[in-house]
Amino acid sequence: MKNLSRRDALKLSGAVAAALLPAAIPAQPTSTAQHASVRVWEIFELTLQGPREDAVINPWKVRWSVVLSQGNRRVSVDGFYDGDGKYKARFMPDAKGPWTYTTESDAPQLRGHAGRFDATDAKPGAHGPVVVHNTQHFSYADGTPYFPFGTTSYAWIHQPEALQQQTLATLKAAPFNKIRMCVFPKHYEYNHNEPEFYPFARSGTTNDYTRFDPRFFAHLERRILDLQAMGIEADLILFHPYDRWGYQSMSAETDAFYLRYLVARLGAYRNVWWSLANEWDLMKSKTLADFDRLFHVLESADAHGHLRSIHYSVTMYDYARPWVTHASLQTDEFEKAPGRLAAWKKPMVFDECKYEGNLNKRWGNISAAEMLRRFWLGVINGCYVTHGETYLPETDAAFNEDTTPTLWWAHGGTLHGESSAGIAQLRRLVEESAPRPSSRMGFDAPVNPYYLNAIAYAPDGKTAETILYYLDSHQPVWYEFPLPDASYTAELIDPAANTITMVPGNFRGKTAKLRLKVKPFQAVRFRLADTATG
Amino acid sequence: MKNLSRRDALKLSGAVAAALLPAAIPAQPTSTAQHASVRVWEIFELTLQGPREDAVINPWKVRWSVVLSQGNRRVSVDGFYDGDGKYKARFMPDAKGPWTYTTESDAPQLRGHAGRFDATDAKPGAHGPVVVHNTQHFSYADGTPYFPFGTTSYAWIHQPEALQQQTLATLKAAPFNKIRMCVFPKHYEYNHNEPEFYPFARSGTTNDYTRFDPRFFAHLERRILDLQAMGIEADLILFHPYDRWGYQSMSAETDAFYLRYLVARLGAYRNVWWSLANEWDLMKSKTLADFDRLFHVLESADAHGHLRSIHYSVTMYDYARPWVTHASLQTDEFEKAPGRLAAWKKPMVFDECKYEGNLNKRWGNISAAEMLRRFWLGVINGCYVTHGETYLPETDAAFNEDTTPTLWWAHGGTLHGESSAGIAQLRRLVEESAPRPSSRMGFDAPVNPYYLNAIAYAPDGKTAETILYYLDSHQPVWYEFPLPDASYTAELIDPAANTITMVPGNFRGKTAKLRLKVKPFQAVRFRLADTATG
Repeated sequence: MKNLSRRDALKLSGAVAAALLPAAIPAQPTSTAQHASVRVWEIFELTLQGPREDAVINPWKVRWSVVLSQGNRRVSVDGFYDGDGKYKARFMPDAKGPWTYTTESDAPQLRGHAGRFDATDAKPGAHGPVVVHNTQHFSYADGTPYFPFGTTSYAWIHQPEALQQQTLATLKAAPFNKIRMCVFPKHYEYNHNEPEFYPFARSGTTNDYTRFDPRFFAHLERRILDLQAMGIEADLILFHPYDRWGYQSMSAETDAFYLRYLVARLGAYRNVWWSLANEWDLMKSKTLADFDRLFHVLESADAHGHLRSIHYSVTMYDYARPWVTHASLQTDEFEKAPGRLAAWKKPMVFDECKYEGNLNKRWGNISAAEMLRRFWLGVINGCYVTHGETYLPETDAAFNEDTTPTLWWAHGGTLHGESSAGIAQLRRLVEESAPRPSSRMGFDAPVNPYYLNAIAYAPDGKTAETILYYLDSHQPVWYEFPLPDASYTAELIDPAANTITMVPGNFRGKTAKLRLKVKPFQAVRFRLADTATG
Repeated sequence: MKNLSRRDALKLSGAVAAALLPAAIPAQPTSTAQHASVRVWEIFELTLQGPREDAVINPWKVRWSVVLSQGNRRVSVDGFYDGDGKYKARFMPDAKGPWTYTTESDAPQLRGHAGRFDATDAKPGAHGPVVVHNTQHFSYADGTPYFPFGTTSYAWIHQPEALQQQTLATLKAAPFNKIRMCVFPKHYEYNHNEPEFYPFARSGTTNDYTRFDPRFFAHLERRILDLQAMGIEADLILFHPYDRWGYQSMSAETDAFYLRYLVARLGAYRNVWWSLANEWDLMKSKTLADFDRLFHVLESADAHGHLRSIHYSVTMYDYARPWVTHASLQTDEFEKAPGRLAAWKKPMVFDECKYEGNLNKRWGNISAAEMLRRFWLGVINGCYVTHGETYLPETDAAFNEDTTPTLWWAHGGTLHGESSAGIAQLRRLVEESAPRPSSRMGFDAPVNPYYLNAIAYAPDGKTAETILYYLDSHQPVWYEFPLPDASYTAELIDPAANTITMVPGNFRGKTAKLRLKVKPFQAVRFRLADTATG
């Protein structure tokens, strides 16, 4: 998939769909509708009335699809049943101009519908789904740089509504533009509650794996749109092992039924990523081959070509496999990043490098300073890092384990940690390293590693426009920083104090000799002198 | 050498010397002297008048030796010329009781002298040279535990006398019981001065590699005794690449000439370790085979069997070689220690894991907190760590490089850093883990790794008497620490604050649940309840 753009991928889906077209196109549409225009990257949704459940028909298993056309381009999206006789299909246009569609189905009521709509300019601030950019980085589909600064709240949508609203308010003020979250409810330490909604129809404690509960998905969609409104990508975890309801050990057929339904409903939401599993290697009822197969189901179903990865506990999935778009790591081995980047040729996100907090678990109690340091080490090594937070109250009740604490990592709520400000500063620094939006084609990959412990952003691939040095535990009172042969400004960055101090003068030559504060975890930014303003 | 004790090694030297004995023993001694008694681990020194330099004889090249006997045991030590017609030989008795000796030489004046002396109880506090104990640890030769907590001051003995005295005063108040120091003067960044003494006779800038300057060695010996009086081991670096005088590129013959002379003079000083080279791989005029050969010269010459190692810059020497007694590492890869301990089956000392300071060099500017953290990580992984300090003044003059700063790592002087108190605390904790001196045979090796991130000291090899946990960057508000099935007291240790707080009550069972401060870099000590007092 390396050389296949998103648009190519959509074409390919269209080509596959073309096999159905000889039947669909000559047929006289039973109806032709003119929809209002739809903005690029928003959702075109088609709703039809179709067969209701009876002794013969299970509408959740009725297959139907919509073939969308623009010129000679064809894209096929699967529709889905939403209950109450309503059949829906969703498509996210990625190009302006007129689109036509026809429908295809084994069910006569859903077959041969046709219509058209115009795709208009994207909303200001809407840049499309996130895609791989320049091998090891990301951008939005329109080319706008996207640098993931994620957080983790696995079960936030399965908490009481008031807590979900508090989570959304917290995210609004936080520096995160991606969140790892489970589709299924979660049963794990510190989180044993029942969710309000279940994905499958449920009677008592028995799941009916032949029917979905549309309320579950409507709720999930609301939360995805809530995140979208804040510019946050939903890194959706599709399977996980923390389960007492049965979702971790469904049949292969049910797994695929669930995946196709999920993709049909959510694929048109631009801020969706697919994380096939969390800690796949802890799911004892599935094998590695099962996940390979499920990746193929996912890739085949997804006309919109969202990012796809999988997260492990101990046994790393082979991220070199062509159906994986990026690595989703559980490790703090940042020093191995350059070698892995070279081997995989894909973006790497350290999705779990332990969480800021004070939890009684090794993975949940690193300090804010260490969390921030790990963000810097990830970025400096050409990768991206994801935050998580697990703070217990410092009370006797918490020590005696007779409270049910609200932990951001599981429940959402509020943030108690102190790493956010520094993460926000780093995100600004990285985003400022990208050119101004007007020159989106000028955006190019960080050249990494440019120097030891430094990352350089070089839009023209030659002269670094921005160079970030991170000093980690080093604290020289002065240091000669290597520079390319150009004129640079220098700024001293104190991530812990969230300050940036300009050094007077420009620096030209092989090195810039700077006087520094004698304290660890500082950074220095050099910017080409003529681009440092504006 | 694994199963060869120091005493065995002395016997072996004696056996080698025995080849000379048939000539020596039957000969009628030309003189028999009764010396005053000598304490065990002190120096028996025999001085004879011998041939002075003339057209034929170079007294520096006259070989002579003293064969010492106790019962059937024989030990041969080489003598050395000290100038002015004086020939000396030195021996450190390691067993009480009567010793006899005879001398052997090609020079008639030095041949056939005999005498006797009594070795008496060691001085209080004198425990003999440091030897390998229980594979991966050290003790003094009398079995008293020795845990190296070293520092580094490469060229302190080549500074003005007042500065040397200041260094000694600093060491007296510091927590260090080993110092890495060069025999030869050092030419390196921040240290370009001329020494007061040169090891070889010198005319202008020309060395006479056939003659030593005894003033150089007498000075070195004074400094070794100064260290000995403070209980500090002199980890003597015998070759190094930082040189403008020619000592790094002498002939193979001169190298051996120098080594044998040095060993003859210093071997009887109990606090001497041999570090064959510093950064051997940076000595461009020597090969790996040269160092192998020099190890053999050293091992062959040294009747007292002092510890032998070698230090590298990038290319690690193979510490599995049988003539190396311990590893002298330049790395901060503490996580690799357990594997290397298992492979080498020798003690490991992290002799350079970077220095506390603010220097404009990557190896010389870690924070005090990081230096202390590295000591803890070394100890917790069953190894030992060496300190160094490189603080530049925070002045314009230092920034402009128009001052000659005094850096502990090169010159000695005073310590400006803040890691010493924490290092002292860790040394106390480790030393307290050894049994009281009265039960010296009860001292046994730390069992490591006992638990992840913990080191346990188990004198009987079964029940851990002391368990040290180090939490590194983890900061749980409470934690359940695994324990053996016995009753333990618990203490919370804050290395940065240099505090130890007893937790009320005893802990018995599989775990001890402790409430902790939410801050990184803390430790916990558990001690068997019945040994925790006294």
